[in-house]
Amino acid sequence: MQKFMISEADFTNRTLSPDLIYQCVKVLRYKINDEFIVGLNNKNYLVVIRNITDKTLIYEIKEELNIDTELDVFVTIIQGYPKGDKFEDIIKHGTQLGAAAFVPCLMKRSQFKIDEKRMNNKIERFKKIAREASEQSFRNQIPDVLPFITLNKIDLYSFDLIFVCYEEEAKHNNIKGLKETIRCLPKGAKIAFIIGPEGGIDESEIIYLKQFNNIKFISLGKRILRTEIASLYALSTISYERELE
Amino acid sequence: MQKFMISEADFTNRTLSPDLIYQCVKVLRYKINDEFIVGLNNKNYLVVIRNITDKTLIYEIKEELNIDTELDVFVTIIQGYPKGDKFEDIIKHGTQLGAAAFVPCLMKRSQFKIDEKRMNNKIERFKKIAREASEQSFRNQIPDVLPFITLNKIDLYSFDLIFVCYEEEAKHNNIKGLKETIRCLPKGAKIAFIIGPEGGIDESEIIYLKQFNNIKFISLGKRILRTEIASLYALSTISYERELE
Repeated sequence: MQKFMISEADFTNRTLSPDLIYQCVKVLRYKINDEFIVGLNNKNYLVVIRNITDKTLIYEIKEELNIDTELDVFVTIIQGYPKGDKFEDIIKHGTQLGAAAFVPCLMKRSQFKIDEKRMNNKIERFKKIAREASEQSFRNQIPDVLPFITLNKIDLYSFDLIFVCYEEEAKHNNIKGLKETIRCLPKGAKIAFIIGPEGGIDESEIIYLKQFNNIKFISLGKRILRTEIASLYALSTISYERELE
Repeated sequence: MQKFMISEADFTNRTLSPDLIYQCVKVLRYKINDEFIVGLNNKNYLVVIRNITDKTLIYEIKEELNIDTELDVFVTIIQGYPKGDKFEDIIKHGTQLGAAAFVPCLMKRSQFKIDEKRMNNKIERFKKIAREASEQSFRNQIPDVLPFITLNKIDLYSFDLIFVCYEEEAKHNNIKGLKETIRCLPKGAKIAFIIGPEGGIDESEIIYLKQFNNIKFISLGKRILRTEIASLYALSTISYERELE
């Protein structure tokens, strides 16, 4: 069953945005009486199409659905901005795994040269990817994608706890800490993972981070993970520890 | 430090294969006295270059290194063969996360049409990807990539335990079992995850799998995961449960 995340206004009018109508008509080839799910404000409704033309679509609500797909803690991925399109994959995959927000962080070793206008376009594109991935994975919330920011501009004390994935720990087999801490997090806790770009977190950034007392350095297993995999590991373990039993 | 997985013969002759020599000379631009790591048979050696030309390279062993990067259980990913290049990403990422083997499984819902010759070429390519990912993540073992196979031809009793990731479980929030079982696996256990292609595992395949008493149906968290993410979730949780403390 297809799910669409929609706006309050479209919900009030029992319709969809023009691009979603296009998708229903041209891609999914919906007809009258076809059903889909709309999601807004953490709620989900099964709806049935009552009227559909090339440019308009009106549905009726059949029932509210009880779909619980959110992690019970808010996980922000502070990702050292990586090369190429990797950040798009990180959003796509991280959304499926329950992330609450993504921060494209311009770290020392991020190789990044684009102007402000293209940055804004990129953020719009990232937000669209987050919305589509949310729909596909039946998320109730669309993860937020924050603007590009340098590490020192992030308000790190806005998080209850921050895990810093520092690959030197992995190299020296110094493995500790993540597990017990995740288990004991209170429901609704705001946590973050800081993940370096290719080449890792710079030593000067590690020194900076060590000032904060809500920071915990962790390792993500015995192997060297590429930057685009680290957030997936982190989010999988949060789901595993807190959702499965 | 660069690591290369090499053959017994090249190790005996203190050299590398022609393609690795090319990489050392042309890509990495190594000179005499440069160092790298060679790996074979679960062992790792720091070596130093004693002689290098455009086509030849001779090194000397400096020391054996104690690098332990293997999971303590053998995890085989039986992956319903997915569309496009996704299987390559599954190998690349799964190798970083410690998989022991990958099986491209032609399941009911795999959309796959290539002839035998191209299949063999693909397996060669998959093996190369596994080797490179092993080197990058300092693995001691190169994961095996098995030939294309249908589900009913796999000897499922060759595994101690098989987890079947069945998305219907996730949809109905029926979450159970994975955690305790992973914790209790004996060291060296041979386990597998069976993951459906796009569209999931077919009901007839589920009926077939239910005959085996070494099979456990599991859910991978509360959200619908795309097929290319499921193995990453599975492997991350194995690492998390068994490697971190």
